[in-house]
Amino acid sequence: MTLRFTKGHGTKNDFVLLADTRGDLELGAEQVRLLADRRAGIGGDGVIRLAPTAAVARAGERVADEVLAAEPEAIWFMDYRNADGSVAQMCGNGVRVFAAFAESLGLADLSDGGELALGTRAGVRRVRKDAHGWYAVDMGPWSLPGGDAAARDGLDAQVLAAGWSTPRPALSVDLGNPHTVVALPDEESLAGLDLTVAPRVEPVPPEGTNVELVVPLEEVTGADGRPVGRLRMRVHERGVGETQSCGTGACAAALAVRTWALHGAGDVPVPDVWSVEVPGGEVRVSLLPGGHVELAGPAELVFSGETTLV
Amino acid sequence: MTLRFTKGHGTKNDFVLLADTRGDLELGAEQVRLLADRRAGIGGDGVIRLAPTAAVARAGERVADEVLAAEPEAIWFMDYRNADGSVAQMCGNGVRVFAAFAESLGLADLSDGGELALGTRAGVRRVRKDAHGWYAVDMGPWSLPGGDAAARDGLDAQVLAAGWSTPRPALSVDLGNPHTVVALPDEESLAGLDLTVAPRVEPVPPEGTNVELVVPLEEVTGADGRPVGRLRMRVHERGVGETQSCGTGACAAALAVRTWALHGAGDVPVPDVWSVEVPGGEVRVSLLPGGHVELAGPAELVFSGETTLV
Repeated sequence: MTLRFTKGHGTKNDFVLLADTRGDLELGAEQVRLLADRRAGIGGDGVIRLAPTAAVARAGERVADEVLAAEPEAIWFMDYRNADGSVAQMCGNGVRVFAAFAESLGLADLSDGGELALGTRAGVRRVRKDAHGWYAVDMGPWSLPGGDAAARDGLDAQVLAAGWSTPRPALSVDLGNPHTVVALPDEESLAGLDLTVAPRVEPVPPEGTNVELVVPLEEVTGADGRPVGRLRMRVHERGVGETQSCGTGACAAALAVRTWALHGAGDVPVPDVWSVEVPGGEVRVSLLPGGHVELAGPAELVFSGETTLV
Repeated sequence: MTLRFTKGHGTKNDFVLLADTRGDLELGAEQVRLLADRRAGIGGDGVIRLAPTAAVARAGERVADEVLAAEPEAIWFMDYRNADGSVAQMCGNGVRVFAAFAESLGLADLSDGGELALGTRAGVRRVRKDAHGWYAVDMGPWSLPGGDAAARDGLDAQVLAAGWSTPRPALSVDLGNPHTVVALPDEESLAGLDLTVAPRVEPVPPEGTNVELVVPLEEVTGADGRPVGRLRMRVHERGVGETQSCGTGACAAALAVRTWALHGAGDVPVPDVWSVEVPGGEVRVSLLPGGHVELAGPAELVFSGETTLV
């Protein structure tokens, strides 16, 4: 069987994309592993199947019914699989690349402020395109699990990375998945950090946590005259290791640094928009009304081809 | 510019293949790095351009003139580039994949005992296809740098890998590039070996060395009734680290184990054909008349596509 595919990436988080517009492609774990294999297959952090939400519902996934009930316009569903073949809920960088893929297929029109509502296993996601051609995704609500005390103190945890003699204070941030953010004094400390082993977090998070190591940078003034915060980060994803980019991690990092900036800022305005440098590139995190956070960044479709792999 | 390409691998040593049949594709180091990038590009251990040998000669590479003088039938040249953009001489696994690529383009006919003579920066290479559909390459001459003494004693060096308390005896083998082969007692020792750091070799090889860690396995009887030796290996390539497969390394490993087998074999015939298990698959090493060695193994073309990368 010949399979047509496209390869794309968002800040070097990369995916094999399959257009299953009829919704009849059955993709087993073994096939996903082969497609995602970087040497014997096409290669990627994950495989994304674009399928009709109705077909995903017919196949028995209840979340697809819920998506259609909440947003009938979400006719396309992002069926995300991890490289190991397992099914995943969502992927912030993957949603951007999905949107670019849907555009390239003529299934979405993001010109002139157009929006794409898509189904995911974490519910409906909305994507728009900004003036720079970046894809902006409403990532939903965020919170500080440590509550008011954590917001006031700016810390509720401690992190000990390899080579550190003492732990550093850290802040927990929830974005549907858990994050722990810790600040480093300068860019050299960040660059020299050993993330080949997972940093230790206290108190031990029951379901593990992603750990973001951040260095706040000097803020700049945006085109609209308002301040734009800046930070650089590296991330250790739970169960994965260090990665080039983590969408929810970038959001958590910006939200933590913003919390620290609010602490004693007095009358100085604290940015609601943050430019975040990850190893794989740059993304932008914005606070939205209603307690939501938006992640914007590039999405590149690198090549298309055919394979007889599956 | 739209570029058509094919991706292929031989025992998981993988390559981006470009058919430059007119010989007018100028490929800079930066383009090679981008094509070989596993996340932002297509991904591979190297990039192989198939070009007319005459065009490579016209571009100023004298070795292409020498290839045509030695073998006028070698009309196609394997222009091999490492993933870092540098120019390379040769690649044993790459030659097999090049042959499969030339076949797929209709530029070589390996059916019914047909042979492909191709130009490389290490001179002419000849490829044939065996009864299993494997590609067999004459890898040229081999030697033991330690000479008769090394052949008699089976050792001329010592290797100390990470976690070992004492060095193990080893044998140097030359295949145009340097190798040091060391035997381990069993498959568990091989599987548990830490090759994240380069094993130390004494005496220190002036230009470095690939190190092959091998476990001889029980021999079997081939279809022709003659013995076939077997071994399993892992390899640390100089300047690269551990790899899934190394063509010259498999040859060196078989030649070393054969040298050890000759030692006191008495009247028992020692195999001239060896099956070598590498992490990425299986290859076959055969002694050819005239002091040459042949490497045979699979070559897979995984997918073809188009990119606007370069």
